[in-house]
Amino acid sequence: MAVVTHIEYEDANEVVRGVYEDIMETRKTDSVNNFWKVLAFDSELLRTTWNETKSVMGSGEIDSLVKEMIYIAVSVTNSCNYCINSHIASARTKGMSGQMLSELMAVTALANKNNALATVSYTHLRAHETRHDLVCRLLLE
Amino acid sequence: MAVVTHIEYEDANEVVRGVYEDIMETRKTDSVNNFWKVLAFDSELLRTTWNETKSVMGSGEIDSLVKEMIYIAVSVTNSCNYCINSHIASARTKGMSGQMLSELMAVTALANKNNALATVSYTHLRAHETRHDLVCRLLLE
Amino acid sequence: MAVVTHIEYEDANEVVRGVYEDIMETRKTDSVNNFWKVLAFDSELLRTTWNETKSVMGSGEIDSLVKEMIYIAVSVTNSCNYCINSHIASARTKGMSGQMLSELMAVTALANKNNALATVSYTHLRAHETRHDLVCRLLLE
Amino acid sequence: MAVVTHIEYEDANEVVRGVYEDIMETRKTDSVNNFWKVLAFDSELLRTTWNETKSVMGSGEIDSLVKEMIYIAVSVTNSCNYCINSHIASARTKGMSGQMLSELMAVTALANKNNALATVSYTHLRAHETRHDLVCRLLLE
Amino acid sequence: MAVVTHIEYEDANEVVRGVYEDIMETRKTDSVNNFWKVLAFDSELLRTTWNETKSVMGSGEIDSLVKEMIYIAVSVTNSCNYCINSHIASARTKGMSGQMLSELMAVTALANKNNALATVSYTHLRAHETRHDLVCRLLLE
Amino acid sequence: MAVVTHIEYEDANEVVRGVYEDIMETRKTDSVNNFWKVLAFDSELLRTTWNETKSVMGSGEIDSLVKEMIYIAVSVTNSCNYCINSHIASARTKGMSGQMLSELMAVTALANKNNALATVSYTHLRAHETRHDLVCRLLLE
Repeated sequence: MAVVTHIEYEDANEVVRGVYEDIMETRKTDSVNNFWKVLAFDSELLRTTWNETKSVMGSGEIDSLVKEMIYIAVSVTNSCNYCINSHIASARTKGMSGQMLSELMAVTALANKNNALATVSYTHLRAHETRHDLVCRLLLE
Repeated sequence: MAVVTHIEYEDANEVVRGVYEDIMETRKTDSVNNFWKVLAFDSELLRTTWNETKSVMGSGEIDSLVKEMIYIAVSVTNSCNYCINSHIASARTKGMSGQMLSELMAVTALANKNNALATVSYTHLRAHETRHDLVCRLLLE
Repeated sequence: MAVVTHIEYEDANEVVRGVYEDIMETRKTDSVNNFWKVLAFDSELLRTTWNETKSVMGSGEIDSLVKEMIYIAVSVTNSCNYCINSHIASARTKGMSGQMLSELMAVTALANKNNALATVSYTHLRAHETRHDLVCRLLLE
Repeated sequence: MAVVTHIEYEDANEVVRGVYEDIMETRKTDSVNNFWKVLAFDSELLRTTWNETKSVMGSGEIDSLVKEMIYIAVSVTNSCNYCINSHIASARTKGMSGQMLSELMAVTALANKNNALATVSYTHLRAHETRHDLVCRLLLE
Repeated sequence: MAVVTHIEYEDANEVVRGVYEDIMETRKTDSVNNFWKVLAFDSELLRTTWNETKSVMGSGEIDSLVKEMIYIAVSVTNSCNYCINSHIASARTKGMSGQMLSELMAVTALANKNNALATVSYTHLRAHETRHDLVCRLLLE
Repeated sequence: MAVVTHIEYEDANEVVRGVYEDIMETRKTDSVNNFWKVLAFDSELLRTTWNETKSVMGSGEIDSLVKEMIYIAVSVTNSCNYCINSHIASARTKGMSGQMLSELMAVTALANKNNALATVSYTHLRAHETRHDLVCRLLLE
């Protein structure tokens, strides 16, 4: 039997209901994603995770659509299928076009590629600095 | 001895010099980052990597500052120190403020956290679907 | 056709049967997880992987329930669904409560978040040390 | 020039000083790790990150030394050098012996290995289910 | 509704058809993997991704079967199920035996394990260099 | 003070000396990499890690130079600097040319890029299967 199960609104305690209501109001929907229903098995984990998500993902100097795209890029890099899907859906409601998704995919893919190239290039180069090069780099440049 | 070494402009062949000139013109600087000088040991790898980077990172429906921030988020997730630094520098020249960097860090950190939470929650929940639940989900919903 | 297939006990060779028996005895069950049945396509890979797992995961100065929780945290970070599920099951048979799973999730999520924050903070800070700072840090502190 | 710099106690605002004092009191030391001094460039990010860390890492049903070891395992998997070092130091003050560190390393390494084995085994096996196998798995088991 | 959908040959524009034809000719099959059909929602992303893949994965000083195995090792490390399966299939058509797959899995798993061991060992060791050790390492060795 | 320190041959116990001798004989050198000297703080961890490495990395149906390149690809993907450097050195002694390193980097980078593209494409596509599509895929294909 599962340790963790979905908790639906009608089975939830006061804290959980409060979070569900805040999620629905903030996102202007009448349903709550499964992610939150699963976290609800621990009211405190649900409450703090939602409060942080609401606070961090709201518009600041970076607007909230851009934040969604940053979030998607991280989720792709970490292979988190649920997160990719729920945040693509969220980005679409905030105005992400098909072309923007395509550009987001291209940047995310390029960064993953260049990260690999930079890691091997730099690591290798540094490892072969002579002591003389190293001292020069540190002291004489 | 290193397999890979820096190649400076004065020691470079025609292909590499052409790329260096395009980098400096595109970025409006008079120097070329070490990343490119290392890749230059293979002219073709340098040329294709630069062309892709120039093409993908330029403004499209997503503007180029936002692309830099997406790139940074991936690089942080992959722990690529060189990439983090060079693209923070690049984002700053395009107008990223300290506050924007702070929000970028907060979103990147939150996504890494919630990816972990979602992975364990969903994985676990699904593993404990009964056959009956599963058939219902697939056939009857 | 698959290169790799399940090998059931009745179809297994002597080495594989020996490992299956040891797994069932060690874990006090009468079935063998699919992970092992898949690895069985290479008897030697099965044998060494099981022996290492048995040896490393047994109680030492760290008890075996704690080891299961450490294993889960790594598996979540690597998005290994099979491993998350099989080791949550294993941890439960060793006494992990729902509250403990919740705390394990919270620590794992926090570490993934703070790893991202530390990577960008430290990388960026170090990149901007002046030569003077660096020499001081290395020689004079 | 760095966007981000260390903020020392004497240069800090009220919020940051309050956090530094709480860190020193909680950890019973008279210094604050650089991680926090860097985050201090954004008081709110510092405050929320510290509060979450303090709350999550304290003893609950999982004791705080075990939480430190779980945190280290994640940090190793993510290659976060700063986090590895600061949390090994922290775990030592809470009683982690050399033998425990060795066992922690062995479990973390094994999980990373077995995650790779499970990912390829399971992925490959599932991809080669015939339609008949799949329907049987879903409907008839 | 999906932002991204499969594009079949008969619904594709000229650019996409040209890529599909080149894929089928290069791979000597009469079908195109779903990966390419999904990327086809952005003709340019499809075209550049295919051209790079064709160019990089062809035999050079490293033959193309070895390149497939390197690709699989990365895909396992990143948990990319689609990539693992399609490139195991591709490697098989180029001659990868069951024994070779088994050795590939063992090397990939070992590298993931030893990466973890090396990360913690080296990080920890370096963190505890005294200033004297460090200066000696840099200047006097 | 460090929990973990280098152990040099002259300070090592019998087990550790035996491993060091086997490393030097197998690799035909008269020195032992620091990785092994650090692991030596736990003789058993050293012995089993070396035995597995020796066994897995030796030539089988995949020759040992190819195994080194696979190992490097994983280490780059995991950002393990020590492992990248020591295995590039090892691959060079086994005949890896500069051109081969360049191709290895290109394949590793491409796989990291395409993994990201495939993850987002597939995830997104599947999430938008209608129930009808899904049932067809499972039952009727």
